[in-house]
Amino acid sequence: MNGAESLIQTALNCGVEVCFANPGTTEMPLVAALDGNARMRAVLALFEGVVTGAADGYARMTDRPALTLTHLGPGFANGIANLHNARRAHSPIVNVIGDHATWHLKADAPLTSDIESLARPVSAWVRHSSSAGAIAADTAEAIAEAMRVPGRTSTLIVPSDCQWSEAGAAAGPRPAGAPPPAAPDSAVRAAAGILKRDGANSVLFMGGAAVRERGLKAAARIAAASGCRLMCETFPARVERGGAMPPVEKLPYFPEMALEAFAKSSSVILAGARAPVAFFGYPNLPSVLIPEGRTVATLATLEQDVALALEALADLIGASRTAPVRAGKGPAARPTGALDPSTIGAAIAAMMPEHAIVMDEAATTGMPFFGASMSAPAHTYLALTGGAIGQGLPCATGAAVACPDRRVISFQADGSAMYTLQALWTQAREGLNVTTLLCNNGRYRILQVELARAGVTEPGPTARSLTSLGNPNLDWVALAQGMGVPGVRVETAEALSEELARALKEPGPRMIEMMI
Amino acid sequence: MNGAESLIQTALNCGVEVCFANPGTTEMPLVAALDGNARMRAVLALFEGVVTGAADGYARMTDRPALTLTHLGPGFANGIANLHNARRAHSPIVNVIGDHATWHLKADAPLTSDIESLARPVSAWVRHSSSAGAIAADTAEAIAEAMRVPGRTSTLIVPSDCQWSEAGAAAGPRPAGAPPPAAPDSAVRAAAGILKRDGANSVLFMGGAAVRERGLKAAARIAAASGCRLMCETFPARVERGGAMPPVEKLPYFPEMALEAFAKSSSVILAGARAPVAFFGYPNLPSVLIPEGRTVATLATLEQDVALALEALADLIGASRTAPVRAGKGPAARPTGALDPSTIGAAIAAMMPEHAIVMDEAATTGMPFFGASMSAPAHTYLALTGGAIGQGLPCATGAAVACPDRRVISFQADGSAMYTLQALWTQAREGLNVTTLLCNNGRYRILQVELARAGVTEPGPTARSLTSLGNPNLDWVALAQGMGVPGVRVETAEALSEELARALKEPGPRMIEMMI
Repeated sequence: MNGAESLIQTALNCGVEVCFANPGTTEMPLVAALDGNARMRAVLALFEGVVTGAADGYARMTDRPALTLTHLGPGFANGIANLHNARRAHSPIVNVIGDHATWHLKADAPLTSDIESLARPVSAWVRHSSSAGAIAADTAEAIAEAMRVPGRTSTLIVPSDCQWSEAGAAAGPRPAGAPPPAAPDSAVRAAAGILKRDGANSVLFMGGAAVRERGLKAAARIAAASGCRLMCETFPARVERGGAMPPVEKLPYFPEMALEAFAKSSSVILAGARAPVAFFGYPNLPSVLIPEGRTVATLATLEQDVALALEALADLIGASRTAPVRAGKGPAARPTGALDPSTIGAAIAAMMPEHAIVMDEAATTGMPFFGASMSAPAHTYLALTGGAIGQGLPCATGAAVACPDRRVISFQADGSAMYTLQALWTQAREGLNVTTLLCNNGRYRILQVELARAGVTEPGPTARSLTSLGNPNLDWVALAQGMGVPGVRVETAEALSEELARALKEPGPRMIEMMI
Repeated sequence: MNGAESLIQTALNCGVEVCFANPGTTEMPLVAALDGNARMRAVLALFEGVVTGAADGYARMTDRPALTLTHLGPGFANGIANLHNARRAHSPIVNVIGDHATWHLKADAPLTSDIESLARPVSAWVRHSSSAGAIAADTAEAIAEAMRVPGRTSTLIVPSDCQWSEAGAAAGPRPAGAPPPAAPDSAVRAAAGILKRDGANSVLFMGGAAVRERGLKAAARIAAASGCRLMCETFPARVERGGAMPPVEKLPYFPEMALEAFAKSSSVILAGARAPVAFFGYPNLPSVLIPEGRTVATLATLEQDVALALEALADLIGASRTAPVRAGKGPAARPTGALDPSTIGAAIAAMMPEHAIVMDEAATTGMPFFGASMSAPAHTYLALTGGAIGQGLPCATGAAVACPDRRVISFQADGSAMYTLQALWTQAREGLNVTTLLCNNGRYRILQVELARAGVTEPGPTARSLTSLGNPNLDWVALAQGMGVPGVRVETAEALSEELARALKEPGPRMIEMMI
């Protein structure tokens, strides 16, 4: 068994079963090891941003890491943007990067670079394996580090000579990780006191495990008993919604609106979320979005057992033992007329099947969807966590690999989609059930808004040019076709509903280009 | 004048006239400043790897920096791979990255990251501007640093509040940089002694300015007088070729062949190039590609005046004062038959117009072209310098921006093209005269070769899958069409010649997909 084989076998022993890969020459022994071990599913992507974004989507849906396999510093660098998003999503990921042979590094060959400097900003743990024999233990440690609650990114750099040299046995299985610690009783009691005092004037602000099924059931009990508002982060990693899940507001994006959302509340209880901050700094607006004078208390941090804390809080305030049952609603009406953010949001809400996974990187066009889908069938919602655009198509790809029995709706802005459009090819190759709803508004609409916010209300030719995707217009049906994904263009809400219904019945990926 | 305006005005004062941009919210004041100053040409790209690769191509053709404008750490990270190539090409580039407002950084907003850790591996100089008033001087210094011989990358990080706050006057013009120092006389005398001793058994191994027109004319005199071989690096940043330029061998890629290329020589004289090293380390092969026992002498380093050193050497060995005149050849015959690396190389050589710029990222398919085009009309050849694939389409784009009167041939491998295919859109928007010759062999052919070199001569399904671009096949005519570039597919050498002739007469970009 060589070092590369010990890496793959150790990963399997530790429960890692998927490798998203874009390998190069320094990873050939790892490719050979994958070739010899069919239990590890190897998924090729034609760009590293797809590799890392897919690993993020896979981790969000399984709570387990996949391996990523990328080529030296520059190849890895192409995956950094989506690793940044994964870091903000607290997704467990194990990056494996091949490096030059140890003795070749001093030659400063063309592809040599400082991989660690590139990796550290997006990795909680970085290791450069020093020998073939060390790889098994390094791999096991990388996986254990990635699995630390709430989830982190590990990066393991393996020189090619360590991959091809003889190693000892593989390591694993992974010892059971420590469970997350419980939130202190004092935090639960403090939150109960706030709810008793402020009732409907308090907000339970949630992230992480608080917006998964168990956490939300407890939150629903708390809201029913106290009258508090339930709110989640603007860009949550994963929220369970619709069906039996309680309605949860999403904090608005722009800081003025976010401040306004808290304005009428006296207190904010944080559960698995930090106090929200503005996405960007603006003149005369604060960084922290909770207005001054509000009581802010942490019930449980992301590193603690958030669901347990919510249950304890529900019990302490004497909430009913069972979550309130939501009144079933019939299917929402299909919208009619022109495509715009509202009709698009309504159409998706009306058409989405039970247990759909919606990856929302629809930017400005996507804003009405969250409200429109509050009473939709049970579904999972994933958002762009770190602001590094180009996350949607890859993350949808990884979610579909993780959940082959569920339908993935990739609700996607055009400008953002261009960063990682190569994901469509992987969807086609793997036959993934991903329906891309591509919002073609032909512009970086958010930047036009931001330009106006910066005082440029009458942009000249250069500012218009730098925020426009026109001249020439992108043709997303052609782009999808070029990568083996069948597509269709729609211009009305009726056509969108029809095509979405059709796409959701067919196996494999499909592109629906929505002209706005 | 705010900080952003002082940055743009300073750059103009220092002779920087183009900004390749993919801005975000933290760069809005810079977008507004560009909007207010039409002398700075702003070129939008829909992915940062296109931005940085275009700046590299522009720098190679003008020897001057362009600005790049990217968004915070993750946006910049998308441009790292092509900055790595630019670093290996010694291209002057000035990166401008917007950052959060200084007071907003402590909020750890979603897009916050360690930008400097990301920038250092690809930047010779990094500065985080501390105030609006500092930006002008920082910009001037960034440009001066980038222009240090032979050319480097500067990275200037400008917080958004420094951009929007009032600043003093712009800086500039740039003081004339120090000329490169002359190589020591002793180096010239040593090289002359080697040539006298070894004659035809010596190799003049060239890079940097040695393979520009002035250096090559001196090299031709040296070769004519001494009988030495002229050889350039495997992946040169820029070589002038064809027409009156002397024939120059290119060092082969695989180390066995490179070692063989030097085997019959007794000595190697380095002019603007380091001693060549293997691209990758392989078992039982050395890092350095000059076999042991050879005399290796440095005539001039990249940081010295290489052309002057070559002229001094030519004079010292008593070479004829004028470069030998190459016998003019008629146009090469057009090849016939199936498309393969040889017929493709021959077709391009036969059809290329005088003063064409050929950007070669054709990987395995491109190998025969260099030899086939030795007697072609005068042209400029650019190669993938740093091994980070995805450089060709962006670099061709930047070269076309730099040289609107010349035809650019973007000779491109399919696997590599997928990393930065967004460049096609910028070519369409800017109406650039770039003809992409896309080699569709449906595989990462080089990896299949490397897999065999690693001992996997009968790859199984996973290894075949991870090195194949098939299932589904990419359709490059559709991909180009999706980005506004007209395209055509060819399957024979005759069709290639015809379509290439047609494309080279038309304005604007065109895609010719070559099915191999």
